[in-house]
Amino acid sequence: MKILIYVSFLGTKYSGYQIQKNAPTVQQALCEASERVFGFKCDVTGCSRTDSGVHANMFCAAVSESGKSGIDTTIPIKKIPLAYAAVLPNDIAVFDAKEVDDDFHPRYDVEYKEYVYKIYNRSISDPFMADRSWHYPRVLDDGAVERMNEAAARFVGKHDFASFMSSGSDVTDTVRTIFEAEVKREGALIEFRVSADGFLYNMVRILTGTLIAVAEGKIEPTDIDAVIESRDRKRAGVTAPPTGLYLNRVVYRD
Amino acid sequence: MKILIYVSFLGTKYSGYQIQKNAPTVQQALCEASERVFGFKCDVTGCSRTDSGVHANMFCAAVSESGKSGIDTTIPIKKIPLAYAAVLPNDIAVFDAKEVDDDFHPRYDVEYKEYVYKIYNRSISDPFMADRSWHYPRVLDDGAVERMNEAAARFVGKHDFASFMSSGSDVTDTVRTIFEAEVKREGALIEFRVSADGFLYNMVRILTGTLIAVAEGKIEPTDIDAVIESRDRKRAGVTAPPTGLYLNRVVYRD
Repeated sequence: MKILIYVSFLGTKYSGYQIQKNAPTVQQALCEASERVFGFKCDVTGCSRTDSGVHANMFCAAVSESGKSGIDTTIPIKKIPLAYAAVLPNDIAVFDAKEVDDDFHPRYDVEYKEYVYKIYNRSISDPFMADRSWHYPRVLDDGAVERMNEAAARFVGKHDFASFMSSGSDVTDTVRTIFEAEVKREGALIEFRVSADGFLYNMVRILTGTLIAVAEGKIEPTDIDAVIESRDRKRAGVTAPPTGLYLNRVVYRD
Repeated sequence: MKILIYVSFLGTKYSGYQIQKNAPTVQQALCEASERVFGFKCDVTGCSRTDSGVHANMFCAAVSESGKSGIDTTIPIKKIPLAYAAVLPNDIAVFDAKEVDDDFHPRYDVEYKEYVYKIYNRSISDPFMADRSWHYPRVLDDGAVERMNEAAARFVGKHDFASFMSSGSDVTDTVRTIFEAEVKREGALIEFRVSADGFLYNMVRILTGTLIAVAEGKIEPTDIDAVIESRDRKRAGVTAPPTGLYLNRVVYRD
């Protein structure tokens, strides 16, 4: 067996998930914590890469003994979250754990993932939302938010999302299926929620930037189909900053 | 006239409000920002001192030209918050501003202040609440929260609160009037809300620690009167950590 851990983290202090030299990453923190929890070096494989500054309400990672296909431990599975709590920094938490098969893969076995993007929409920023949202100071009216939601509905379906991928990715198959995409306002927060079977590099951030272009009247909701068909990054909106992005849910097959 | 600014701040990176050498403080950040906004050195007088790590949803400060009793500026009062937004760090915001008389004093003219103390009550901590709450991992049942609320009700009134003051204060009159004191649970958060005409050094944090002692059965709600009457710091609970404390409202006379 492997152990699948359910993790939440505040991404502010981390250079993303994936381990790298000379920069703190979530994966490195989880590797170090896993070694202290289990008493031996571990491999920690995440459900996705995330960029620097991006957050997670739910991120999944599989833990196995380093170089082996599984893990052998006497720690009861229910005690795993508390064991991690004792050794993790306070901006990362393991809130649940499950036993999974040796051949389980936290990235390839994903059925769908959901992201939430938070836009803080007041003229004056909120210190408690800094680094946790995109501060967009021009206050959008209800009509603008409704247009964003109409545009988001046009993202839904199986499409080639090449227009919504940053360069620097070696992915060649840019077809993905978006299951749900919705924009809602709650007080000062405008939240964009999107689920799909997979996401391209910076895809949610570019979808968000495109929704803001719709709010500003630069793109009409009905233009979205043409933006998708163009397969042209320049037709989409800006790449929204990482601070507003949260991986919110990971659902596996079975 | 002076300018009264309404400020919110995340206190995590600051050694409290009051200016000091070799440590970042909110007052220093406001002084530097004021100089950039108005073009001359300013005196910034706050409504209270706050400890390192304490937050404010509403904090008030009066701004005048350095060494003078007032301020002379052509910036319209409505533009002041945006002018500060351009120069303040993202963990401090000025969200409103008013003109007040030269003889207004942001500390002495307070009618009452309200604090909120947030306790995060789950066995596993939440990365998004770290540094913004007190993580109390033993989950309290509804009966415990109800006892905390009963105890809080006994704080209300004009009392000598010497039992709830940390040493290190030169205050001799320890009588204060608490107008409201209430404990409520909202999901994982237990919030203690208290308003008074003034607060002693660490008073809200010691009141909170005392409420936790009540939740743990170490002090009965009906014992609170005796704890107050004792004027003995040792009879009250621990000093809760600063991370959970928020100055929430400041109300002036007139």
